[in-house]
Amino acid sequence: MEFPSKLIENAVGELARLPGIGRKTALRLALHLLKAEMDTTASLAEALAKMRFEITYCNTCHSISDTEECAICANKLRDHSLVCVVSDVRDVIAIENTGQYKGVYHVLGGVISPIEGIGPSDLHIDSLVARAAAEDSEVREVILAISPTMEGDTTAFYLSRRLRDLPNVHISTIARGIPVGGELEYADEITLGRSIVERLRQAR
Amino acid sequence: MEFPSKLIENAVGELARLPGIGRKTALRLALHLLKAEMDTTASLAEALAKMRFEITYCNTCHSISDTEECAICANKLRDHSLVCVVSDVRDVIAIENTGQYKGVYHVLGGVISPIEGIGPSDLHIDSLVARAAAEDSEVREVILAISPTMEGDTTAFYLSRRLRDLPNVHISTIARGIPVGGELEYADEITLGRSIVERLRQAR
Repeated sequence: MEFPSKLIENAVGELARLPGIGRKTALRLALHLLKAEMDTTASLAEALAKMRFEITYCNTCHSISDTEECAICANKLRDHSLVCVVSDVRDVIAIENTGQYKGVYHVLGGVISPIEGIGPSDLHIDSLVARAAAEDSEVREVILAISPTMEGDTTAFYLSRRLRDLPNVHISTIARGIPVGGELEYADEITLGRSIVERLRQAR
Repeated sequence: MEFPSKLIENAVGELARLPGIGRKTALRLALHLLKAEMDTTASLAEALAKMRFEITYCNTCHSISDTEECAICANKLRDHSLVCVVSDVRDVIAIENTGQYKGVYHVLGGVISPIEGIGPSDLHIDSLVARAAAEDSEVREVILAISPTMEGDTTAFYLSRRLRDLPNVHISTIARGIPVGGELEYADEITLGRSIVERLRQAR
């Protein structure tokens, strides 16, 4: 694609580096910004730069935070004996949106992936173990809420090996099974098989 | 959706104002930027702001340009007697990419749309008429290359009425018909009907 202006070519190039945005979409976004008020672009550029340069991470759970301790870790009403381990801040937001979880979190910052060169030392695993093993630790249960992909399962396995020697800490995994509203016939065999093996007995 | 940080909430809000980007995609983009180098965000923000504030438009054809006269209008090798009227810079880029057109352009900056409150005076129509009617005008043909939507057809109709009294200027429209590679049975009736009525006779 040839562009009539270096400035627009530059902007399109930068936008197209974002995941899921190709050059055609990038051009559409750039032309949209050109048509909109100048303020729109100014506040977008400022919000992005401000976010990138000023954001901090919680010292305890490594989630995104505006302060040294995130709002969830600082909340005394939450159950600090329950730690939900997730790979990403997105998962924290997703679980928070369910409104079903009252414990705290630990964000690994990714999953173990030898192909991408990400080993255990690149993730916040040591700080999780330290957090659970500390003498004054309140942690009684670690919930592994990591996506059941190849890398996610590897990470979960590694974590359970690192944590299993802690006498007072239970390890659990989020339930696998048929999604609510899902059709049995379209479920893959592994999910369906596990959902039968790990069936829930109804209370009488 | 609740966000763990005001900074990220702000950035997501701004990104989600872009066309075709919802809050989930915006969050994905924001988290991508947070994971990437700081430079990525800095150069994206800078490219967007620079584009918005420094871009200029060609005085003749109103296309995007880095200079007062765009590269196409300044090109003496192009046919300045042929003016292709388009609604948007995107169309200029699309036509240029075909490599089939050697004339110049005129960018209207939109189409007439009473619903959106866009009338002829909001578009670069007067300057097109002035350009074609000028005493020293080179223009011999105006090609209307406007999308055949309701608003586009209205705009084309309005333009042809404004231009029809100019004795030395022919008006033409880009050909409508079955797209190359398209299947006849899937074409809509109007397109198929017009493609038969306005059929091209093969040279013997």
